[in-house]
Amino acid sequence: MNDKRIGKRTIKFPTLPEIIGAASVVGVKEGEGPQAQWFDKILQDDYYGEKTWEKAESKMLKNSISMAVENAGMQVQNIDVLLSGDLLNQLMSSSYMARDVGIPYLGLYGACSTMTESMLVGSIMVDGGYCVSAAAAASSHFATAERQFRMPLEHGNQRPPQAQWTATAAGSVVIKKNYGDTGAHDRHICITHGTIGRVIDPGITDTNFMGGAMAPAAYDTIRVHLADLDRKARDYDLILTGDLGIAGRHIMQDLTKNKPEFEGFKDIYEDCGAIMYDSNQDTHSGGSGCGCSASIICGRIIKELRQKKYKRVMLVSTGALVSTISKQQGETVPGIAHAVTLEVF
Amino acid sequence: MNDKRIGKRTIKFPTLPEIIGAASVVGVKEGEGPQAQWFDKILQDDYYGEKTWEKAESKMLKNSISMAVENAGMQVQNIDVLLSGDLLNQLMSSSYMARDVGIPYLGLYGACSTMTESMLVGSIMVDGGYCVSAAAAASSHFATAERQFRMPLEHGNQRPPQAQWTATAAGSVVIKKNYGDTGAHDRHICITHGTIGRVIDPGITDTNFMGGAMAPAAYDTIRVHLADLDRKARDYDLILTGDLGIAGRHIMQDLTKNKPEFEGFKDIYEDCGAIMYDSNQDTHSGGSGCGCSASIICGRIIKELRQKKYKRVMLVSTGALVSTISKQQGETVPGIAHAVTLEVF
Repeated sequence: MNDKRIGKRTIKFPTLPEIIGAASVVGVKEGEGPQAQWFDKILQDDYYGEKTWEKAESKMLKNSISMAVENAGMQVQNIDVLLSGDLLNQLMSSSYMARDVGIPYLGLYGACSTMTESMLVGSIMVDGGYCVSAAAAASSHFATAERQFRMPLEHGNQRPPQAQWTATAAGSVVIKKNYGDTGAHDRHICITHGTIGRVIDPGITDTNFMGGAMAPAAYDTIRVHLADLDRKARDYDLILTGDLGIAGRHIMQDLTKNKPEFEGFKDIYEDCGAIMYDSNQDTHSGGSGCGCSASIICGRIIKELRQKKYKRVMLVSTGALVSTISKQQGETVPGIAHAVTLEVF
Repeated sequence: MNDKRIGKRTIKFPTLPEIIGAASVVGVKEGEGPQAQWFDKILQDDYYGEKTWEKAESKMLKNSISMAVENAGMQVQNIDVLLSGDLLNQLMSSSYMARDVGIPYLGLYGACSTMTESMLVGSIMVDGGYCVSAAAAASSHFATAERQFRMPLEHGNQRPPQAQWTATAAGSVVIKKNYGDTGAHDRHICITHGTIGRVIDPGITDTNFMGGAMAPAAYDTIRVHLADLDRKARDYDLILTGDLGIAGRHIMQDLTKNKPEFEGFKDIYEDCGAIMYDSNQDTHSGGSGCGCSASIICGRIIKELRQKKYKRVMLVSTGALVSTISKQQGETVPGIAHAVTLEVF
């Protein structure tokens, strides 16, 4: 044990790596929802001037990085490493984005947990002194995900009430070594801790019920994060899960009920999937996809931290580790969730 | 700049994280090839007692980790983090393996460059003090890759001469903080440096010609690694690329010709794909897949380092960042390559 390892699974970042830039790019539907005011760019067409949705997703991801880097007052060629992932087979969006951006790149995959996975790895690299600056990013696109995981959009298939809507969205942050000066912004948003998730499989086989598949992993990660730091839920102004959706948010509230460390949890808990769309947007249980938590974290939460709405938040993107092949082979849908805690100084 | 950043893109690991365990598991064909003596387990049937090839691949990966952990004289529950990836959509092999292993997990994707990517991230986490021990792994399976990327095996399609054969193979290492004692082995195999790759796209559209797509990325990473450390190729006993195959190995030799820092390169250069199979095994340009370099690194190279055959080796797994969708959309095949340097003390 040392000053960077706390308890069983939690990592401390003693140098307080700082988020010095952030940006989000979202699609048409997301821009019509209740979070619209927070997004940095809203597309007028989900093709984004490209011939395919996959190329549009890659472009959204790339633009979210360019905008985050600009927001940080930096040039992209001065970013030391790019950490990114998405839902597409072989990380298609991230790979082509990384080719166009041209800086050193590590591809990450944690399904919809990818945003906090990339923030975690970026914080480790910056805090450890292996780089000065890192860009961490993730994306998803409704049309690319639907045709890859489910049905072609033209099929117009019905969706059960527990189904979630893959957000057309991308988010990026720039994490930089904390030199103590305030730089472009007058407040320091620092990543203080992280907890790497374990894969937890509640045995769900319905791939439409991802909230149920991921909630136990989110609960496990939050519980361990709190226990390792000897904190309670009340020590946070906000605990935000990735995309459990409305159904998964209910399960989280059930799982935390009557647990002393989770006293008052419901007052400080929210889920990105549950708040991405309005109930009249026909998205059933809410949003999902890597871009769902990525765009809300990079679009809304970073701004709210800058505005001093929160002092300390825990972000817990959640992923359902499933593929079309695993589903065909009768496998269950395991979940994973990675946590990072941000504080304003 | 500090003691962990050297030149433009190279990372130094001042605490010399140590590889204390390694293991490889390969399929029938690989076990009939020229590397057979080095592998720790050779399957008698590529289904490995499972109902599907995907489940067999996941089991190979899991067993390579169990064997590496045993080789390290540790228990799997004492490994702090698991870093793994594979070629399957949504990292199916790694996800289900990570569920079964049950320890904290970060999914990585670098196509066939994943083994050195996972070793790089593992070294950063151990050297930085974020964990004491990490397991780094990667796998591939001929039958899972063929039906995902190309054609069902039953189709029996012809393969062009530049095509490579996805290795049915998995490899894992255990990286641990270097406490200075010799532990289970009498020699320290340490990871001294790493270089994160950039995505480089030579514009190749033939997805059978992966050696050509990846060689420029391998060349770029090796060149930068040498320049950053002010070394020449001759300072290494072995520079081993991932899976450029026979065609890609030729290209590497062409790219390095008449470059002063690469003087004598051909005497110390080899490629895992080019040596995986015999010419009579009908694999055309040689082996590929994450498991190709993973099994040769974890099977052969670590043993040869223990036997003092080499003092210093550079390992450069190489990945072709392509998907079936990107190919259908007329995209080219970009390459990436990550390097780690190992030394024996």
